[in-house]
Amino acid sequence: MDKYKVTHRLLRQSIKSLVNRQLTSNNPIYRFISAFPLGNGGRNPQLYRSFGSLATKVERNPSFSSLNSDDLSYFKGVLGEKNVVQDEDRLETANIDWMHKYKGFSKLLLLPRNTEEVSKILEYCNSRRLAVVPQGGNTGLVGGSVPVFDEVIINVGSMNKIIAFDKVSGILVCEAGCILENLISYLDNQGFVMPLDLGAKGSCQIGGNVSTNAGGLRFVRYGSLHGNVLGLEAVLANGDVLDMLGTLRKDNTGYDLKHLFIGSEGSLGIVTKVSILTPPKLSSVNIAFLACEDYLSCQKLLSEAKRKLGEILSAFEFLDSHAMDLVLNHLEGVRNPLSSAVHNFYLLIETTGSDESYDKEKLEAFLLHSMESGLISDGVLAQDINQASSFWRIQALMRAGPVYKYDLSLPVEKMYNLVEEMRARLGQSANVVGYGHLGDGNLHLNVSAPRYDDTILAQIEPYVYEWTSKHRGSISAEHGLGLMKANEIFYSKSHGTVQLMASIKKLLDPNGILNPYKVLPRSLLSYS
Amino acid sequence: MDKYKVTHRLLRQSIKSLVNRQLTSNNPIYRFISAFPLGNGGRNPQLYRSFGSLATKVERNPSFSSLNSDDLSYFKGVLGEKNVVQDEDRLETANIDWMHKYKGFSKLLLLPRNTEEVSKILEYCNSRRLAVVPQGGNTGLVGGSVPVFDEVIINVGSMNKIIAFDKVSGILVCEAGCILENLISYLDNQGFVMPLDLGAKGSCQIGGNVSTNAGGLRFVRYGSLHGNVLGLEAVLANGDVLDMLGTLRKDNTGYDLKHLFIGSEGSLGIVTKVSILTPPKLSSVNIAFLACEDYLSCQKLLSEAKRKLGEILSAFEFLDSHAMDLVLNHLEGVRNPLSSAVHNFYLLIETTGSDESYDKEKLEAFLLHSMESGLISDGVLAQDINQASSFWRIQALMRAGPVYKYDLSLPVEKMYNLVEEMRARLGQSANVVGYGHLGDGNLHLNVSAPRYDDTILAQIEPYVYEWTSKHRGSISAEHGLGLMKANEIFYSKSHGTVQLMASIKKLLDPNGILNPYKVLPRSLLSYS
Repeated sequence: MDKYKVTHRLLRQSIKSLVNRQLTSNNPIYRFISAFPLGNGGRNPQLYRSFGSLATKVERNPSFSSLNSDDLSYFKGVLGEKNVVQDEDRLETANIDWMHKYKGFSKLLLLPRNTEEVSKILEYCNSRRLAVVPQGGNTGLVGGSVPVFDEVIINVGSMNKIIAFDKVSGILVCEAGCILENLISYLDNQGFVMPLDLGAKGSCQIGGNVSTNAGGLRFVRYGSLHGNVLGLEAVLANGDVLDMLGTLRKDNTGYDLKHLFIGSEGSLGIVTKVSILTPPKLSSVNIAFLACEDYLSCQKLLSEAKRKLGEILSAFEFLDSHAMDLVLNHLEGVRNPLSSAVHNFYLLIETTGSDESYDKEKLEAFLLHSMESGLISDGVLAQDINQASSFWRIQALMRAGPVYKYDLSLPVEKMYNLVEEMRARLGQSANVVGYGHLGDGNLHLNVSAPRYDDTILAQIEPYVYEWTSKHRGSISAEHGLGLMKANEIFYSKSHGTVQLMASIKKLLDPNGILNPYKVLPRSLLSYS
Repeated sequence: MDKYKVTHRLLRQSIKSLVNRQLTSNNPIYRFISAFPLGNGGRNPQLYRSFGSLATKVERNPSFSSLNSDDLSYFKGVLGEKNVVQDEDRLETANIDWMHKYKGFSKLLLLPRNTEEVSKILEYCNSRRLAVVPQGGNTGLVGGSVPVFDEVIINVGSMNKIIAFDKVSGILVCEAGCILENLISYLDNQGFVMPLDLGAKGSCQIGGNVSTNAGGLRFVRYGSLHGNVLGLEAVLANGDVLDMLGTLRKDNTGYDLKHLFIGSEGSLGIVTKVSILTPPKLSSVNIAFLACEDYLSCQKLLSEAKRKLGEILSAFEFLDSHAMDLVLNHLEGVRNPLSSAVHNFYLLIETTGSDESYDKEKLEAFLLHSMESGLISDGVLAQDINQASSFWRIQALMRAGPVYKYDLSLPVEKMYNLVEEMRARLGQSANVVGYGHLGDGNLHLNVSAPRYDDTILAQIEPYVYEWTSKHRGSISAEHGLGLMKANEIFYSKSHGTVQLMASIKKLLDPNGILNPYKVLPRSLLSYS
């Protein structure tokens, strides 16, 4: 029996033995996918080298004031003693991002409990020219949610109430500090689905998700927050509360200003409430883990999947053999679920639909057809993958030493060329791995090296940004610009557009107190 | 045999006799749906009473210049003689909206052929303080696309090239003047679907669709243009060309400014190019036309459909018996496809999926279950409805005399209360009909009367707006504000939000030359 037939038989067996159980967020395979897309590092910061603060490259805006005792008295009067935090340990946590790459020197963390308090704080800070950093779960990857210097940290985590849920329309209204995972659970109990899911869900907050326009796992199915967020409440730098908290699918009455706050990383206002459209939970989830021998086949499979699986396709992720090697070499007890051979590419396809048996048959037919046409060389369905119970810990990629991480949007057909070019360019000096959300054209390019090394960095940057720009890609698909890439914005946006962004920033925040040094290039935000 | 059993048998027969043919845009049932949601009037303006220009209520901005012969020479130099139109007949058409409700007095129609020409025209008009109206297919319903006074009309209809289509990602890039129906056909040939479809598709242009954030038919499935438009090119009032023409699903590099231009009705810039994400065409389309006896059942059926049909549900429209009566009484040759009795409500459900037999079985199971649980009292599937070959001409509603038309977003459970209240309020003096996109919470409320009558109008307005506002609805779900509702914006938007809109308008168009008197309340746009 030749290899094709063996594999074919294996796949058929896999399909036949597929169990009908639901995949919940506790299921290891589900967790594998959950953790996969963001490629977040592990939660233990000691494992990673701190890059130290990049603040040395940035000059403190001399127009900002410094905190004094009157300020503290004012904040204590508004928030109460215990919500004005000066404790060093708590400040240490709030000053450092969870990759331990950025560290600020704030002396004050404020914990408002409602919109009115946020408004009072901001009005005061604006009048005093005290710079602030809005902070949610502090799970950002570009240094956007920690101070650069001594900015006052405003954390909205105490504002975590669900305000309303309409079961007819599936519209959820909640405060900005709600943790994403709690919203996911709440909706699950109501028979609905959060259109957003990502690796950091246990810590990240919906206000932060909205402010950073988080992408994540369900993007390929439900699209971006610009489509799903129906309304917002935001507090402007001067304390004005902007009520845009609509709960309607359709509303064409004037400019849709909420979009300014989606993805502006807290630099135009602090999001305090969110209204979001949630689709009904569908009962049937199926997962396939497949092998392809070349990138062209991955692409073709994506096209086929969009057409043949169509409305039930809910994730289409890929990783290359280098990414797989890292996982297998650095995570104990994990083995390749496709044990028969080493393959060049691996794909993870998820379907979500309303009918167990139809969906399964549809996926089976699709896989058999793909097998017969030679697009996939091996594959397993949900049941067969669960021996790799800790496989989801893709963050092993981070444990293999220092890693330069890039989150790029590129045309799907060009995407893997960059990985190959980087591999040729860097030779033996580093290990280049590629993985990401193929369905969205989102590549996570990780370059791991024995140590952080300026020679290697010079080989990567600005080459990666230039290459991305040349192919009209985005240098930040979903992570945002933050402090890390504020000055690189021109690789992805035209000068006129960035100028207009700066004008809007000045219009909404004339003193520049909101999340300074982030998002926009410092050259455009001259200090008065 | 009781009524239930007869109906049940009829429905089963309908299901069994459903033919497998594809529904194309030439199919009468499809056309019925296409024409239904917008409720557009017929194309023959002579049939309708003109309201006359509402310009009498508006004062011409005294800071605007009037055209002189130097201006004409300049425009001829840029565009060539034939694209500077002064012909009275052509101006007449361009000055009047297609409902014949609004009429401007422009003496000049400009037909640029590319972005550079649009830029030169606007730069010149801005320096000369000549007001302009951007115009596409001129199919708007709120007087947004025609001049109020002597504004120069800039029609981008000559800019109608498809620039690129990426078959892997389904991303279309085209010029703003492309007619929607042409894009739909083009994509259909490529095996893809435009995520937007509406009654006016034969005339409306994609630039106008984007500028008005058109909703339409496929909204319930594919969501709003804020989710589907990936990039834009727009020319600002001062002639600056803003290149935001991204072609990426994910791009978090700075503020996403394209959203400012989606739905701002040409008051912030002229859209010249559009990039849009198009889903693959799915091969199986099924339609059911159903009867419900009460509005609560309609709502329940919507909830059920979202869950049971889930990913294949692509339209959920409703009309009440008054709307049906109008259609039946005023359109020759049309009869109720559900001939057995008169029902209180009618629903049209469309499914679109990738597998003919699965989808049909799913719909059949859903309908049988709904029948058994008493939610629907009668129903037919595609095959049985086609005797009503001209049924799609819902615009018959317009032929029954003068009609006051309202396009409202409301919470689904409240939506029909307004229709009933209006009916009680107006008594015998007018006929109140309700229909619309139930799946999106979008009600089209039409009040038809023997003649236009200020007494009737005073009974309707501002009551309808106040009622909508009280229930946090939108006074314009999809039609926009235009000239008609610019001053009513506060019914749906907070003062702070509208103030910020006005600030952004002043930032982008300091002289206010772009589509003046529209969208924003005149009180906020003081003339300098």
